[in-house]
Amino acid sequence: MALIVKKFGGSSVANAERVFNVANRIIEDYKKGNDVIVVVSAQGDTTDDLIDKAKEINPDGPSKREMDMLLASGEQISISLLAMAIEKLGYPVKSLLGWQAGFETDSHYGMARIKRVNTERLQKEIDKKNIVIVAGFQGLNKYDDITTLGRGGSDTSAVAIAASMRADLCQIYTDVDGVYTADPRKVSNAVKMDEISYDEMLELAAMGAQVLNNRSVEMAKKYNVELEVLSSLEVKPGTIVKEKVKMEKTLIKGVAKDNNVARISIVGLDDTPGVAFKIFNKLAQFKVNVDIILQSVGRDNTKDITFTVPSDQAKQAVEAIESLKDILNYKEISVDESVAKISIVGAGMESHPGVASKMFEALYDAGINIQMISTSEIKISVLIDAKSADNAVTAVHDAFLN
Amino acid sequence: MALIVKKFGGSSVANAERVFNVANRIIEDYKKGNDVIVVVSAQGDTTDDLIDKAKEINPDGPSKREMDMLLASGEQISISLLAMAIEKLGYPVKSLLGWQAGFETDSHYGMARIKRVNTERLQKEIDKKNIVIVAGFQGLNKYDDITTLGRGGSDTSAVAIAASMRADLCQIYTDVDGVYTADPRKVSNAVKMDEISYDEMLELAAMGAQVLNNRSVEMAKKYNVELEVLSSLEVKPGTIVKEKVKMEKTLIKGVAKDNNVARISIVGLDDTPGVAFKIFNKLAQFKVNVDIILQSVGRDNTKDITFTVPSDQAKQAVEAIESLKDILNYKEISVDESVAKISIVGAGMESHPGVASKMFEALYDAGINIQMISTSEIKISVLIDAKSADNAVTAVHDAFLN
Repeated sequence: MALIVKKFGGSSVANAERVFNVANRIIEDYKKGNDVIVVVSAQGDTTDDLIDKAKEINPDGPSKREMDMLLASGEQISISLLAMAIEKLGYPVKSLLGWQAGFETDSHYGMARIKRVNTERLQKEIDKKNIVIVAGFQGLNKYDDITTLGRGGSDTSAVAIAASMRADLCQIYTDVDGVYTADPRKVSNAVKMDEISYDEMLELAAMGAQVLNNRSVEMAKKYNVELEVLSSLEVKPGTIVKEKVKMEKTLIKGVAKDNNVARISIVGLDDTPGVAFKIFNKLAQFKVNVDIILQSVGRDNTKDITFTVPSDQAKQAVEAIESLKDILNYKEISVDESVAKISIVGAGMESHPGVASKMFEALYDAGINIQMISTSEIKISVLIDAKSADNAVTAVHDAFLN
Repeated sequence: MALIVKKFGGSSVANAERVFNVANRIIEDYKKGNDVIVVVSAQGDTTDDLIDKAKEINPDGPSKREMDMLLASGEQISISLLAMAIEKLGYPVKSLLGWQAGFETDSHYGMARIKRVNTERLQKEIDKKNIVIVAGFQGLNKYDDITTLGRGGSDTSAVAIAASMRADLCQIYTDVDGVYTADPRKVSNAVKMDEISYDEMLELAAMGAQVLNNRSVEMAKKYNVELEVLSSLEVKPGTIVKEKVKMEKTLIKGVAKDNNVARISIVGLDDTPGVAFKIFNKLAQFKVNVDIILQSVGRDNTKDITFTVPSDQAKQAVEAIESLKDILNYKEISVDESVAKISIVGAGMESHPGVASKMFEALYDAGINIQMISTSEIKISVLIDAKSADNAVTAVHDAFLN
């Protein structure tokens, strides 16, 4: 007997047949005597369809508050349908919206952060032996307005429930059957891992491995929630993500590619103290997530600063810089979106100096030019031309993982 | 400067063009300095599409709780889209779900009754000079679960807000431009009324005139909310529904037809006291709404009782009677569904004895046989063969309203 939190994405509940498939997976665990809380996303293309409706009304983008009101209807549909399927199969069930399940968030509409999960209602339904189906991706702010958590929000919802309810396991069902050393659709000899640590998973997630959203992994690490990434279609064990993992034969845990990246260069800045602070402070105020940063050596009393951001934040980043016009001198800003970030991840990298050079050598052998480099204790990332990204992943994977 | 509540149905917001049409109607009143609260239903076919999805999961009908959870998503979509259109046109607006707008209901999922509208949030948004868009048809019960109000629920939502906020006017937008003396699609010389009293409107609604749901008229009467029924497409005055109306040249306010009626006859009952009580008490227990009742004069120590019920309750009515088998002697029960009820409605009818005979004469002249008759202070109804219903409406309308 355990408390298990399960999360199913939108494609897992895209039609009636899949809804029943998910219902059966849930009932299997319930029948064994477990308490089960399930987090679901909106069905298949529902969210995209809703976005289209909004764009038809206002192509410039409606307010984020109304957008959240609109989008939150998607999970309301999927939770009620899943609950109906479980009812039909003869098991007790209740669907709950984000706010009913106790999700209290801040007021950043469209990318709200969970402040707290008030578990009173969840606990009450579990005590009544109900299977509980919770709308992922959504919560309520202090004004009693609906908020959504942004991309990957349902993963975060699931982990937040698992943490607040002290669940024994949080299972994230996906269309892959676990975490691989590289994207198995791209790299034929990619290997599925049985276990991976939070930190390694975080680096893989941040680097564009789409299996798990990194906010959810961060939260799992913080509250020590054991995650399992597994297939919603096949019944077999997935990859466990936890604090300490067994020593595995290979140091490098994976190669990841991220195309959602733009490189922004500010050229001809005054070479005076405080320039970097002003820029990155302003970017933080504009909620831009800066990744790799490179500052050129000063010359002619000017310097250049280059950094990367997620593609969809490039426009905001430029606006942030331009808002500094009065206190910041520079010649020009340029944005390059035709770049990709390739990363290798593995614990203990910093004590193995040969790792970086081996990666760079593999790229050199494949004729790929490195534009920027960033390293941390457990990862090395390079920025390269987007066109070479798939070649680069194969080259690096071959060098390390064969 | 006034507080105006406006209600738009699903067809009024069925697509982006119509949403903007509605937005403009709202803004017109707001620009004049009025406070405006708008109640909307789900877009066009949304509710039917959601019902189809539910039937696909469970053809036997899912639980009403989950059905309400599902259906309430429909208005969530329409309110946010309408709010986006108003934003786009440059006016301040907030959309609110039923529970956010303070709708507290009982727990009859699928046909909940409003217990109270907590107006705190509505008042706050009005004080900030926001146009407020409220999801009709929905509320929250004491368990914090979503409920829906059943057929015509959005009209009731609008009247409830108007009553609780002491609005100056509650405008119900429909696809007709007011209340007519007969169905204008059937009777070519039907006349639109400028004003009608609550009681007359109630009788018309109960008699099958589909313009306004009678729960909403009952509530308007109870709280003395002035209603206006008007067209969502054309800009012109509609029909005002209120307590006292101006004396008009004609006593009769309208002719209505109701095809949703079945005649049930119990033949050969013992002519002893208590028979009628036993029958109608049992029908009430079976929740059958009995309308016209006719009892024959006793003969050979037996009598017949005939009554009408809504068509869809005929089966239940027969079951109710049959359950009395042990304590009630009768020869047979017959059910006739090929009947229609034609009614004329107008205040002060009881003091004008000529009205009934004029109606009967018109039917006689048209060669229509009257099966049953029922009268009240403000209406006269006759039951006739369903095939003659349209002829009967025209004949009666011509007699009184030309």
